Amino acid sequence: MQKIARLLLLSILIYSCSNDNKVLVEDSEGNHPNLILTKSAVSEIKTQLGAIPIFDETLALAKEEVDEAIEKGIAVPMPKDMAGGYTHTQHKLNYAHMQKAGVLFQLLGDKKYAVFVRDMLLEYAKIFPTFDTHPEPRSYATGKFFWQCLNDSNWLVYTSQAYDCIYDWLPKDQTAYLNKNLFRPYADFLSVKNPKYFNRVHNHSTWGNVAVGMIGLVMDDEELINRSLYGLEKGNVDLNEKDNDGGFIYDKEGKAGFLANVDSPFSPDGFYTEGPYYQRYAMYPFLIFAEALQNKKPDLKIFDYKEGVLIKAVDALLNLTDADGEFFPLNDGQKGMSYYTSSLVSAVDIAYYYGNQDTRLLSVAKKQGTVQLDATGLKVAQDLKAGKEAPFVKQSMMLSDGSKGDEGGIGILRYNSQDDTMALVYKYAAQGLSHGHYDKLSFSLYENGDEVLQDYGLSRFVNVEQKNGGGYLKENKTYAKHTIAHNTVVQNGVSHYKYDFETGSKNHPEQFVFDASDVNFQIASAKESNAYPGTEMHRTLIMIKDDALGKPFIVDVFNLQSNSKNQYDLPFHYFGQIIATSFDYSVPKSLTTLGDKYGYNHIWNEGSGIANAESIQFTWLNNRRFYTLTSATSKSDEIIFARVGANDPKFNLRKDPSVIIRRNNTQNTTFASIIESHGTYNPVKEVAANAYSSFSKIEVISSDEDYTAIKLLFKKEEEKLLILANKDSNPNTEHNFKLKDKTVNWKGVYYYK
Amino acid sequence: MQKIARLLLLSILIYSCSNDNKVLVEDSEGNHPNLILTKSAVSEIKTQLGAIPIFDETLALAKEEVDEAIEKGIAVPMPKDMAGGYTHTQHKLNYAHMQKAGVLFQLLGDKKYAVFVRDMLLEYAKIFPTFDTHPEPRSYATGKFFWQCLNDSNWLVYTSQAYDCIYDWLPKDQTAYLNKNLFRPYADFLSVKNPKYFNRVHNHSTWGNVAVGMIGLVMDDEELINRSLYGLEKGNVDLNEKDNDGGFIYDKEGKAGFLANVDSPFSPDGFYTEGPYYQRYAMYPFLIFAEALQNKKPDLKIFDYKEGVLIKAVDALLNLTDADGEFFPLNDGQKGMSYYTSSLVSAVDIAYYYGNQDTRLLSVAKKQGTVQLDATGLKVAQDLKAGKEAPFVKQSMMLSDGSKGDEGGIGILRYNSQDDTMALVYKYAAQGLSHGHYDKLSFSLYENGDEVLQDYGLSRFVNVEQKNGGGYLKENKTYAKHTIAHNTVVQNGVSHYKYDFETGSKNHPEQFVFDASDVNFQIASAKESNAYPGTEMHRTLIMIKDDALGKPFIVDVFNLQSNSKNQYDLPFHYFGQIIATSFDYSVPKSLTTLGDKYGYNHIWNEGSGIANAESIQFTWLNNRRFYTLTSATSKSDEIIFARVGANDPKFNLRKDPSVIIRRNNTQNTTFASIIESHGTYNPVKEVAANAYSSFSKIEVISSDEDYTAIKLLFKKEEEKLLILANKDSNPNTEHNFKLKDKTVNWKGVYYYK
Repeated sequence: MQKIARLLLLSILIYSCSNDNKVLVEDSEGNHPNLILTKSAVSEIKTQLGAIPIFDETLALAKEEVDEAIEKGIAVPMPKDMAGGYTHTQHKLNYAHMQKAGVLFQLLGDKKYAVFVRDMLLEYAKIFPTFDTHPEPRSYATGKFFWQCLNDSNWLVYTSQAYDCIYDWLPKDQTAYLNKNLFRPYADFLSVKNPKYFNRVHNHSTWGNVAVGMIGLVMDDEELINRSLYGLEKGNVDLNEKDNDGGFIYDKEGKAGFLANVDSPFSPDGFYTEGPYYQRYAMYPFLIFAEALQNKKPDLKIFDYKEGVLIKAVDALLNLTDADGEFFPLNDGQKGMSYYTSSLVSAVDIAYYYGNQDTRLLSVAKKQGTVQLDATGLKVAQDLKAGKEAPFVKQSMMLSDGSKGDEGGIGILRYNSQDDTMALVYKYAAQGLSHGHYDKLSFSLYENGDEVLQDYGLSRFVNVEQKNGGGYLKENKTYAKHTIAHNTVVQNGVSHYKYDFETGSKNHPEQFVFDASDVNFQIASAKESNAYPGTEMHRTLIMIKDDALGKPFIVDVFNLQSNSKNQYDLPFHYFGQIIATSFDYSVPKSLTTLGDKYGYNHIWNEGSGIANAESIQFTWLNNRRFYTLTSATSKSDEIIFARVGANDPKFNLRKDPSVIIRRNNTQNTTFASIIESHGTYNPVKEVAANAYSSFSKIEVISSDEDYTAIKLLFKKEEEKLLILANKDSNPNTEHNFKLKDKTVNWKGVYYYK
Repeated sequence: MQKIARLLLLSILIYSCSNDNKVLVEDSEGNHPNLILTKSAVSEIKTQLGAIPIFDETLALAKEEVDEAIEKGIAVPMPKDMAGGYTHTQHKLNYAHMQKAGVLFQLLGDKKYAVFVRDMLLEYAKIFPTFDTHPEPRSYATGKFFWQCLNDSNWLVYTSQAYDCIYDWLPKDQTAYLNKNLFRPYADFLSVKNPKYFNRVHNHSTWGNVAVGMIGLVMDDEELINRSLYGLEKGNVDLNEKDNDGGFIYDKEGKAGFLANVDSPFSPDGFYTEGPYYQRYAMYPFLIFAEALQNKKPDLKIFDYKEGVLIKAVDALLNLTDADGEFFPLNDGQKGMSYYTSSLVSAVDIAYYYGNQDTRLLSVAKKQGTVQLDATGLKVAQDLKAGKEAPFVKQSMMLSDGSKGDEGGIGILRYNSQDDTMALVYKYAAQGLSHGHYDKLSFSLYENGDEVLQDYGLSRFVNVEQKNGGGYLKENKTYAKHTIAHNTVVQNGVSHYKYDFETGSKNHPEQFVFDASDVNFQIASAKESNAYPGTEMHRTLIMIKDDALGKPFIVDVFNLQSNSKNQYDLPFHYFGQIIATSFDYSVPKSLTTLGDKYGYNHIWNEGSGIANAESIQFTWLNNRRFYTLTSATSKSDEIIFARVGANDPKFNLRKDPSVIIRRNNTQNTTFASIIESHGTYNPVKEVAANAYSSFSKIEVISSDEDYTAIKLLFKKEEEKLLILANKDSNPNTEHNFKLKDKTVNWKGVYYYK
């Protein structure tokens, strides 16, 4: 409340003062701004100011921030530091402040903001020619003011907007000077001087393309605009060349430029192959440039491009979040990043304005509490004020991967009850470019905003300078990207595709079935036959809501058909405290690692036991909730209690636990498990409610290439039969299956009764 | 909002229906109820119902709960299970329901509630004589319906209130029957048949005393009342006899009974020697019986007893909580327990009513959102409605320990700013009876509601049946109670007092100084000379708020003067991820324990290094905040990264980390450290703000029996000199101290400039 009061006061001050004391600017005669803010939008916004709360508050905050920066004075230091260091941070602040100052100049009409942008640009123009590149040569594309071209592109994307806002206010000789001495050379630096950076299909290059395109639009420089949209001439390049991240430099088809970056990594459903964390990062350049193109090159119809994929991408991204709005950390993803980030503010506003005014987006904007300071934000603010928002209830959905949507995907199963939400994220997507992880057919599970079974995410402390300058840590490659860091099967201790990027990039799982039409029985199933040549993996994940149980439970059926005998490890990366196990185990006197490569070298073996039964149970407590894994076992299966953290000389890894079911010397087999959230612990009342599983057992009755039959035994003397067709996913096929005492007939991929 | 709406509806239903359809009860002719509810209170409450929101809501919830229980039917099973099991839980539910049903009968006048209590009591009376004790003989005092007398006492304390509410409604032959066949024998069972249970000074016995006293008051049985107040005749008992928890059976002075339990464990400040977790548990019997005594034996003036210690105890307990209201887990304490627990609802209401109507208590009651259903709750509800509450801002305070207040204590230093609160809890208290831990001069640190440097608390999952029936775990004795599980010095790897309970119980630290009068320089200091014979430990903890820094920092000065050379270990039990260290270290290929006893056997050595400098720094990240420990070292000091979890065959322990400064082969020495919370990490903005310490170094200039002089070096080229007088704590003594280049003069125990 206090914050709101302060903002209101600020808002009042802005509108009451701005027409009195300040030197106001006449409407200029040129046609700028025309990039993001337009002359007509500026006029309309000015008539609304003071009556559009969320917009007014955003503007007041921007004013507060920029006024403080002006007060502090301009600082354009010679580049020196890596991410997190002083010069890096200062240059980041500078472009953020300039972009806002440009907006403030236009909307409030106070010349001091234009002066601030101008003076800072002149400083940049002064030092730009005095050095070649940033002194830290740690990137495959070393930047100018930053250690990598990526950050320089950020600078140019934001600064272009500021420049556009003061362009007509500046004397012509000054724009000519800046164009010639700063902006055009900067655009050339990011493109022709860094072709390996500029010509990729990658989020980095998207920023590069957009940087060049935005400044091209401001300067009406058609050459830059075309370079931005279609890339550089490629000549004879090696399509297999890789960057220092291990990713390919060039697109498989050799395409480049902004449109290629829309074409290739986005699936028709709007899923971005690198994963949500990088999609979030890329959304800003994609959408801000689309907005600019729509303003200046409306004939391109960029928002209709690829059947409107840019708008679809915003919806996809919002759906790739947990109940708190945090992105699922698929592939390289830092946990905690959420749709509250500023790039999603822009994305939501732009998607609302240029899409079909999906009023669910308004409720996200309302949570974000801030808008983009342009026509899109104005519209959102007006419609929020008019109370048009609808709730954004995330539903189960399948998001295809691959530019044509035929390279697997992500299946999200959700169950929303009054008090809780459960979300299962099944990853059977493609490699995901250089940020991809080697986890085919893995899944993670969420309850409300909490991780139940986690995807480790990346190993990095973004912008924490002490941790490798805020960059990726060695352990990202040696642990986080490996298969064992995920909830999926590892064969013979080797990661999928032998951890080979080229192999991974050529292959992908195939969706077998996705059907969430029955909210009480939602199923997602996929196959992968290239992760381990000679072995076919087929995993089916089902979210079942049984009337007798308060919450849905998960059935996980993992079939392996191989031409050889193997060791199969199936890990479950839980959190919290072990409460009970159905099997005996022992703990060692000293800890050693589970292996010496493929990530196993980072895992301590904290204890192990033999299943010695046809079904085991493992109960744990986390976040004051009780969970149980019930799993069908071979009697000789080994159960391993594992914990990350070995061979971690800088303590970069989190010490997270997992339980691993290890099946040795086996050719064809089925792992069948039930995962339940069944109880709660209240430490104030000291009451453990439903601390025990509702199941006594899960049994694999039979499993072959055609069918897998499973029995689920409830403690309340009830049992359910689950039969899955493994070959034919046609929902209309009639099946029959002989059990000992009867024949079961059904239509479609599953039987459950 | 939904919940409140539902409650309002329920409230309306209660008051609109209760006078129509139900068989109402005439005012009875006897003098019951007169224990907690009284006839006059009932009359007054009835006139207010419907107009006292928090009371109405509490009553509506009670009605909902009891109606559901009545619907379900009465179940009084033969005792069988331990805590967490069915019969245990059912008997607990029974007394809770009966107590509430009694209140509902009185306040709503619906006979069905009296019938419910009566019928259940008759069931209990039927089975009571049919067996001797509970079948699980795991306690030193096996109970009847429960595995320990403690729970049976709970039953009787609650059930006495229910019985009182229907006493006059029952036919006289039925009360006579119940008195003779259930209540009197039950009271005898808990006292004369279990003298070792009944005659202790211990929270268990308090419950026993109160159970006997409450039912005595209901039955007007003066013998029971006297037995309750003064204990059993002791005869020739062995004062050194111990129970199976390792605690003494009898009070040092041989006193027993309720008044002895007020006299002995409470200090004059209201601190309860077992610690806040058990104080919270004991508050209910203490205060509910005090209320009953005040109602029936007002001449006792129980609330004035020991200068009003029972009311003071409520204030002390509320101050022994973090920003979320959770109790500091000193000694045996389960984390997460808070002042939202029902015993604190009673305590707050009773303290408000019978104390001096401290309006700060109303704001706690408001947060609790519920009241006791009697005159005290009525008063709270009325005064809350009248808007009388004042904020309960916790201040720094010293709480003495020992019945006379001369056995050390707890020093709490707090700093409250607009956004954050910092709380340091310095423990220099006495042993704390059988629930005490061996950590003299230890401390823990909180920021807002989060632990920064933790006290491990107990090792137990209370009421989680799978974990040893919900009882204490072996690791409580082998790890949690040991010194190394706390933030204080361990000499030669041996716990304080050699982990000997008798030695611990005979000794305690002595407060040297506590002065929180200057909010920018708050100091607590204490000495301990018996934990290690021949070694004097003197620790001073200071919370300093420097204008240049946003948050206060802690200076920790730990002096050791010994007659021999020793190894000193000073652990800091942090949480989270290591970000940076000023020293080099290496990590082992396999993990081994730090030792083989005194808790060291449960700790893995995850890595270590040599300080190799006169001051080291250690920065970590937790809860999105950066912390740094800056510590003066000898060059040969070893720094050990430790983690709990070794030799833990049932995974009972949490895998929590610590950093240990180890100083070898040293006689007299001073550990001087700075602990700062200096920065934040925002994963949405990916900004690390103030990720570095504000200090470059801390130096011990000199340290001897008389003075310790320390220099704090800020990075901003400033330094501060801190001199502590070690012998004379008189605030008026004039000191002078010669430095190399000057002489410093000051008055009082410290100099800081």
